[in-house]
Amino acid sequence: MREFYLIEIAKKMLKVERENVIVGIGEDDCAVVRIGNKNVVMTADCLHEKTDFPSGIKPEEIGHLALAVNLSDLAGCGAKPSFFLYTITLTRDTDEEKFRGILRGMRDLADRYDVAVIGGDTDFGDELHISGFAIGEAERFVTQSGAKVGDYVCVTGLLGKAQLSLEQLFSGYDRDEIAYPESLFKPEPRIKEGIEIAKHANAMTDISDSLAISLNLIAEKSNVGIEIYENSITLDHLLGYVDYEKALELFLYAGGDYELVYTSKQCQHVKIGKVVEGSGVWLIRKDGRREKIEFKGFSHR
Amino acid sequence: MREFYLIEIAKKMLKVERENVIVGIGEDDCAVVRIGNKNVVMTADCLHEKTDFPSGIKPEEIGHLALAVNLSDLAGCGAKPSFFLYTITLTRDTDEEKFRGILRGMRDLADRYDVAVIGGDTDFGDELHISGFAIGEAERFVTQSGAKVGDYVCVTGLLGKAQLSLEQLFSGYDRDEIAYPESLFKPEPRIKEGIEIAKHANAMTDISDSLAISLNLIAEKSNVGIEIYENSITLDHLLGYVDYEKALELFLYAGGDYELVYTSKQCQHVKIGKVVEGSGVWLIRKDGRREKIEFKGFSHR
Repeated sequence: MREFYLIEIAKKMLKVERENVIVGIGEDDCAVVRIGNKNVVMTADCLHEKTDFPSGIKPEEIGHLALAVNLSDLAGCGAKPSFFLYTITLTRDTDEEKFRGILRGMRDLADRYDVAVIGGDTDFGDELHISGFAIGEAERFVTQSGAKVGDYVCVTGLLGKAQLSLEQLFSGYDRDEIAYPESLFKPEPRIKEGIEIAKHANAMTDISDSLAISLNLIAEKSNVGIEIYENSITLDHLLGYVDYEKALELFLYAGGDYELVYTSKQCQHVKIGKVVEGSGVWLIRKDGRREKIEFKGFSHR
Repeated sequence: MREFYLIEIAKKMLKVERENVIVGIGEDDCAVVRIGNKNVVMTADCLHEKTDFPSGIKPEEIGHLALAVNLSDLAGCGAKPSFFLYTITLTRDTDEEKFRGILRGMRDLADRYDVAVIGGDTDFGDELHISGFAIGEAERFVTQSGAKVGDYVCVTGLLGKAQLSLEQLFSGYDRDEIAYPESLFKPEPRIKEGIEIAKHANAMTDISDSLAISLNLIAEKSNVGIEIYENSITLDHLLGYVDYEKALELFLYAGGDYELVYTSKQCQHVKIGKVVEGSGVWLIRKDGRREKIEFKGFSHR
């Protein structure tokens, strides 16, 4: 994916050695810096109408998503979110009620996790666009690079629901007919789970693009291999809608579910695999065949 | 200006009482929060190709501007900048060299002020767009609301240069023919000045939209009046290009110069007026007439 190539360029050009920068640009979901005696975790993420908002989305859900995508990054590091700032570009025909709806969605999610929205910049352009910037704190934070051989690989929930719903929408279903509207329009960032997991996990990240991409990042950065066992994967939530191989593809290569994947000696959630010696990410089929899980995902965001 | 109306809506909807939020949304150039034992100052600002980048701008200058506009906000609070994150939307035809140029401009400015660029999100859309988030620290920070009757009103430099240059560009001049290309394409945020001024000023803000808007914000929020003396205003830098009344208009109502305006018992820079009892912002003409300085500016950003 071209985005990852550009991240590599940015990482090379902008990386600095600084005593107060613990995790710098391009290294992980979030940056981690020291301010006073605190680990402060920061992330920036942006969403666009055409590429990131499914058709039929309500203003409240746009505001929710803009905050949720950033909180999910913080959750992936095990941080407790504290503050949020946004910049929003409205199209010139946006009415006040839509703007209020977006802010309402943002506020409702912020309130639930005790996040203070402390700043915003509003202007006008050709496409609705929201950039968010979230700041949190973490006593112990977890990156993608600490996975250890022997760790279990675990996910906080079932995967593929958002992409399945999106594809149903593309194929002509209305938003009240699709399988998992909440997963698509109002996904819940796994804040509390992230904070709990950070107490014991060796590596963690949120699944924003796909499980495959998240696992490949963990494997590469931790210099380990990862095996996922087909036997351990639950696909029942998808099988009522698509066939088995499509369901498996959604599970591995779909994004948008805002779940977390982590490696740890203890699994509090769904155990799907193990960290092994070597490199690469592998699907161990029920019949024992090893298939490479590639670095790819549906890029609907 | 419609933007200010929307800021008021956001302020009403999103404002929260929180022990660790000292300056919240919509109150000032920046938010100020407590993290550990530090005053942490944060701001978010975004720029668009069509509305914010003058024609003929180089990629390096785009990167410079995206960071500079945020550093200028921090300077307006007297904060020392520490960290920066960005989100950038590239058009699909952007080549790698342009992307590198933008990052180079950002990096060069960041390096000069010891700012670590710690995060970025890159995606694609219809218009080049950069949102920036800057984080700084301030032992003593200065807001727009502390002006005291008897304070001098001071500006860090000559105003109107960026808008004059922009209008020359609009009228068909090339970028090497305009009066102040540096002011337009590569303005310098007044970081060092802001930190110095914060040691004694009662109110301060950067002049992003216009002197008129900055002064009106200070007067309103501080519950004071402000008098600007025509006698004290220097227009020589504009008079070679436009007539006197146009020069005065540029000085009062033009933006983009990235200078700071502050009120203090001591003036380290150009003294242009005084804080008085009452309300509103007034131009005291050479002949003694009082003219209201309205809340308006050229909105080229």
